[in-house]
Amino acid sequence: MKIEVINTGTEILLGHVTNTHLAYLAKELFSIGYRIERQITVPDGEGIREALSESLKRADLIIITGGLGPTSDDITREISAELLDKSLEFVPEIWTHIVERFQRRQKTPAGNNLRQAMVPEGATFLQNENGTAPGLIIPYRHLVVVLLPGPPRELTSMWKNQAFPWLKENLFKSTEIVQKQWRILGIGESDVEKEIEPKLRAIGLTEIGYCARAGEVDLRVISSNLSHLDQAHEIVSKTFNEAIYSLGNETMEEIVVALAQAKKKKIATAESCTGGFIAHRLTLVPGCSSVFEFGWVTYANEAKIKELHLPSSTLDQFGAVSRETVLAMASGALQESNADISIAVSGIAGPTGGTAKKPVGSCWIAWATKERVWAEHYLLSQNRENFKMMASQLALDGVRRWLNSLD
Amino acid sequence: MKIEVINTGTEILLGHVTNTHLAYLAKELFSIGYRIERQITVPDGEGIREALSESLKRADLIIITGGLGPTSDDITREISAELLDKSLEFVPEIWTHIVERFQRRQKTPAGNNLRQAMVPEGATFLQNENGTAPGLIIPYRHLVVVLLPGPPRELTSMWKNQAFPWLKENLFKSTEIVQKQWRILGIGESDVEKEIEPKLRAIGLTEIGYCARAGEVDLRVISSNLSHLDQAHEIVSKTFNEAIYSLGNETMEEIVVALAQAKKKKIATAESCTGGFIAHRLTLVPGCSSVFEFGWVTYANEAKIKELHLPSSTLDQFGAVSRETVLAMASGALQESNADISIAVSGIAGPTGGTAKKPVGSCWIAWATKERVWAEHYLLSQNRENFKMMASQLALDGVRRWLNSLD
Repeated sequence: MKIEVINTGTEILLGHVTNTHLAYLAKELFSIGYRIERQITVPDGEGIREALSESLKRADLIIITGGLGPTSDDITREISAELLDKSLEFVPEIWTHIVERFQRRQKTPAGNNLRQAMVPEGATFLQNENGTAPGLIIPYRHLVVVLLPGPPRELTSMWKNQAFPWLKENLFKSTEIVQKQWRILGIGESDVEKEIEPKLRAIGLTEIGYCARAGEVDLRVISSNLSHLDQAHEIVSKTFNEAIYSLGNETMEEIVVALAQAKKKKIATAESCTGGFIAHRLTLVPGCSSVFEFGWVTYANEAKIKELHLPSSTLDQFGAVSRETVLAMASGALQESNADISIAVSGIAGPTGGTAKKPVGSCWIAWATKERVWAEHYLLSQNRENFKMMASQLALDGVRRWLNSLD
Repeated sequence: MKIEVINTGTEILLGHVTNTHLAYLAKELFSIGYRIERQITVPDGEGIREALSESLKRADLIIITGGLGPTSDDITREISAELLDKSLEFVPEIWTHIVERFQRRQKTPAGNNLRQAMVPEGATFLQNENGTAPGLIIPYRHLVVVLLPGPPRELTSMWKNQAFPWLKENLFKSTEIVQKQWRILGIGESDVEKEIEPKLRAIGLTEIGYCARAGEVDLRVISSNLSHLDQAHEIVSKTFNEAIYSLGNETMEEIVVALAQAKKKKIATAESCTGGFIAHRLTLVPGCSSVFEFGWVTYANEAKIKELHLPSSTLDQFGAVSRETVLAMASGALQESNADISIAVSGIAGPTGGTAKKPVGSCWIAWATKERVWAEHYLLSQNRENFKMMASQLALDGVRRWLNSLD
């Protein structure tokens, strides 16, 4: 099956946003063994015409993103209908959904929203839970054209809940190719490869993939042989043990919150250099309030002293980025919050503030429980955003390991 | 000038990496008024052949990334030479550079590295400071084809130091097309369009674009007529006034931190439903420590009482999501931190916890300064991630408006 993706969006071609749809759709399709053959980005408006005409000559499945909005440069729906020889029909059900959506905000839709309720004959429409523009699945001769809205939030939930299930049901005949994935923290991509690849090849696996992010790697194998996959799981588990934090696409915060809920333990955070990012990640997980109650962002030294009872003598003697400081921060947060485990982080996120002894990227993380406090030092990325990601990941991983160690 | 970009890379089409080259090149080109008309991604290997053939019929400048490495699926150089009717010539200078690079690591190049020293006749080669693969600039009839290596670090420095200067010198004659952008908060995309489009069309502008994100819109116009753009700026400013928070690509947090630094004011945060996300956003900005010192994530009621001195009677009488509670939280944070302005947020991020009176999406935000405290109620997205984004944006926007109101 030849799959092509067409992304519409002047903002992508101007560099205002990065195209994240392609990677998202590619991963989703690849999870059941399908691959995208070609991807094209065209500007809003008429650009879609030529690209779609060309793709229609080559592809079996065409996924188009963007251009379903109410404004004048959003004409993906109209041009697709035209090229596929379909007339557009008004669907009252969609219009009702749009009107209700506006009403919830005490507004009424504009006349140009009417276009969003038009559906090409024979097409299936996909309700948009997060916006007004419905998606469309249009069968045409031997092929299928799928139109999805451009805003990532709208696209991902519509894909997951409606478009992908429809395609699995109606287009993709076999889903016998299965994937397994392991998320591994703290080991470099080439070390993961060197360790595991010969062992996996030895049992006959050939489709082995790696996806590296800051400080971690997703290892992935694809095969139609289920017993190979089971063997692979045994081998990978033995090789990387506790460094594997997830077997699916679950994030570290989802795993930590679920574990804490299962073991009825509460987490508190005391953040300097991560600046609230750990608390943000925990609170992205619905229901986290049962395990997360107190967090501090003590960015200034004064805040560490006042809120977390850090002795100023510790700061004077060892500095803000030191084992002694994070240990005291973690203890202060535990005591003040009455949580079961606390995290404290202090480091140098850069780009300035580094010294020869404590370069940009230096990071101390401590954890405190009622039984003990401990700390680790890391040298992380010199890129500010990556630094925060890596530090928060390691901090949460310490909580995961502690929770796992409990009966 | 018609510019097309072809990215080669199976890993992009499998979703293992996100294509960041496009946004990078787009921004660079647009900085001197040029735009990319179309972008295509093809797998490693033969995929480049059809894509380049097509682009040669349309474009004046084609930039190809990737496929210059030594392995067997890296054949961009060879296929380009073939399609452009050029023979490949060995260039000893490149080979010397490759050998030296290997020697520095006590290694010797493999035989397949020899291919990297081959240059199409008449082409200019670009030394690679960070790898072995040289870039190539190949003039062909009326057009130019530029080949750049795939690894981002190699590509960006080669582009900046060699390819872009060459193009500016030899190809780009004028820089007359200019863009203006306004980031507008709190007005829906279709309302923005309805308000502004007739006015902009009336002065002769036709290239008008909108990019919607949760709760906000980027409005963008492109024109070669500078006086039209000046007029547009006047019209847009008058129409949307203070709702415009940025004229470029700056984020809200960058603008707030810069304003606070300029006015020497400090910000404190007291977050419930946003869970540290506001603090995280502020601390993404390098140098924010001069204006941000104290943040609280008071997720539990008990934390609000203990850390922010919220009277428990207020909670009992009005609940956690109420005007009275956020006003008290903001006052408590201001007092405890000694900042100049504090933000407090409490709401229902969902998916559960909503009631008929306080549905999911309800959000109270308060701000406190030494002179006054005030609060606003919003009904935001029912999607948790979006809810946090919108609430944090509105909270920071209140700080921006207050800072702007100061002399």
